[in-house]
Amino acid sequence: MILGIDIGGTSAKFGIVSHEGEISHSKRFKTEGWITKGGFINNLADEIGNYLKQFPAITGIGIGWPGLLSGDRKKVVLLPNIPSVKDELIVPLLNSRFPGIVFKIENDAKCAALGEYYFGGHKGFDNYILVTLGTGVGSGVVMKGKLFIGVRGNGTEIGHILTHTGKTLEEQVGLKNLVAYAKELLAKDVSYKSSLHTVEDLDPKSIQEEAEKGDEIALEVYKYAGRFLGETMVGVIRTLDLNKILIGGGISPAIELIKPEMLAKLKKHLPAYYTDELEIKQATLSNDAGLLGAAALILEK
Amino acid sequence: MILGIDIGGTSAKFGIVSHEGEISHSKRFKTEGWITKGGFINNLADEIGNYLKQFPAITGIGIGWPGLLSGDRKKVVLLPNIPSVKDELIVPLLNSRFPGIVFKIENDAKCAALGEYYFGGHKGFDNYILVTLGTGVGSGVVMKGKLFIGVRGNGTEIGHILTHTGKTLEEQVGLKNLVAYAKELLAKDVSYKSSLHTVEDLDPKSIQEEAEKGDEIALEVYKYAGRFLGETMVGVIRTLDLNKILIGGGISPAIELIKPEMLAKLKKHLPAYYTDELEIKQATLSNDAGLLGAAALILEK
Repeated sequence: MILGIDIGGTSAKFGIVSHEGEISHSKRFKTEGWITKGGFINNLADEIGNYLKQFPAITGIGIGWPGLLSGDRKKVVLLPNIPSVKDELIVPLLNSRFPGIVFKIENDAKCAALGEYYFGGHKGFDNYILVTLGTGVGSGVVMKGKLFIGVRGNGTEIGHILTHTGKTLEEQVGLKNLVAYAKELLAKDVSYKSSLHTVEDLDPKSIQEEAEKGDEIALEVYKYAGRFLGETMVGVIRTLDLNKILIGGGISPAIELIKPEMLAKLKKHLPAYYTDELEIKQATLSNDAGLLGAAALILEK
Repeated sequence: MILGIDIGGTSAKFGIVSHEGEISHSKRFKTEGWITKGGFINNLADEIGNYLKQFPAITGIGIGWPGLLSGDRKKVVLLPNIPSVKDELIVPLLNSRFPGIVFKIENDAKCAALGEYYFGGHKGFDNYILVTLGTGVGSGVVMKGKLFIGVRGNGTEIGHILTHTGKTLEEQVGLKNLVAYAKELLAKDVSYKSSLHTVEDLDPKSIQEEAEKGDEIALEVYKYAGRFLGETMVGVIRTLDLNKILIGGGISPAIELIKPEMLAKLKKHLPAYYTDELEIKQATLSNDAGLLGAAALILEK
């Protein structure tokens, strides 16, 4: 039995994951208090202990972290949301407290990519990049069925690649930035053509709804996202030579509306060799990708 | 005994390469006529035959090509300078003509990177990118002592990554473009401060000479190169997480003058994790890198 744990900025989600990718007994813990009361790792270990008591069949536990990890995958080396955990020897500490249990840790976006490989709906995808478009832009690469993590362990961080504006991809197409761009366009839309003017609290969901109805400004926002994604992917494809792109995260249901501009940029700047069999698809795991991927760490050989 | 062959746009250089990386019996063939007279591969095979007759101890032959190769490394799939060779089954053809000889083919910039690993002066460098700055900008990555070629075989083509101007790195810092930029700056230098005004045929060498004497405009050209290299490397490092960069090619003796701006951009856009132990050094093999690297293909396991 495998326990998957997805650590976020303010909470940790636990769940028992079957070999078929079904999640049961999932539970979300608020983690703000963990740092002050005994330290984050101790609190995490306490909750792990509770799960192990309740499910003695657990043999492996995978944990995804929203930060950079050491090459030997024993600790995190950069964790902006929970700085106190930096450099704590997470895996050795958990190993000594729970002998006999296999612990694996990994970056959360890389977990999500691995989760798609083990539990996703795109069968036959052995080589791809998963780009998760949310508040942040995370990504992970699966190469020949295994995570590709680069030389030192923290590669495939494509959200932090510079775009033509001098800002990173994440600073351009993170959900907040897309909403901000929509507001910018609306301020210029003096003839009030867009129905987004009538939306009280503009959010990614309302942009998507209006885009699907053909709203010009909502579509312009997606064209903008497609441009940045496409131009950044030119560099990623030139570097990794992969031709399968999965898009996950909050914006991913809109992928068909983002794709045309993304493809246009890719075809403009890449020879046919790279684009002839290029596929861009929506990821299949949605919100549980991180948790499932953390569990998949235990399945990886 | 190993024969290395470095195919260029208009010539092919042959050379016997010892296990210590010494080149002997090297010979350069003009290849313009090869296409019309019997085809490129036939002419190449004829010259290979001549070498084999003269040196019967040759057991392996590595050939570097200035283009993209098939994933199975049997043929080239994109070769702008010699389009007729595209899709010809180079390795099977040579195998059937010369049974018992091992043939390996690879992209020329990747060869150069591998050559540095086997024959270069940077001992202990097992993970690095070699960027060759010449008319074109080529690159190759060595990861754990082996070539990293990406999923489908044609990754690490960083010269073709888009920069903030919308042009590729090669279109910005290829030698011709640097000379063009110098001319642009000189046209604006109305007070004739730069001694480059007195150079009759401005070329990369004269820019380097004047930069070393402190000429402001020559140094400005290198600052410009450093900016583009640094900003592009931000993305490459975020993707591959390597921290050793070798610079080769015609401009590489000037690397110490290019480095400050390159480092400034890297440190501006990357967390300390990526830059703390970052090294940028001049490659050691100069003009023979391609030939030596082609030979090194035979040494690679």
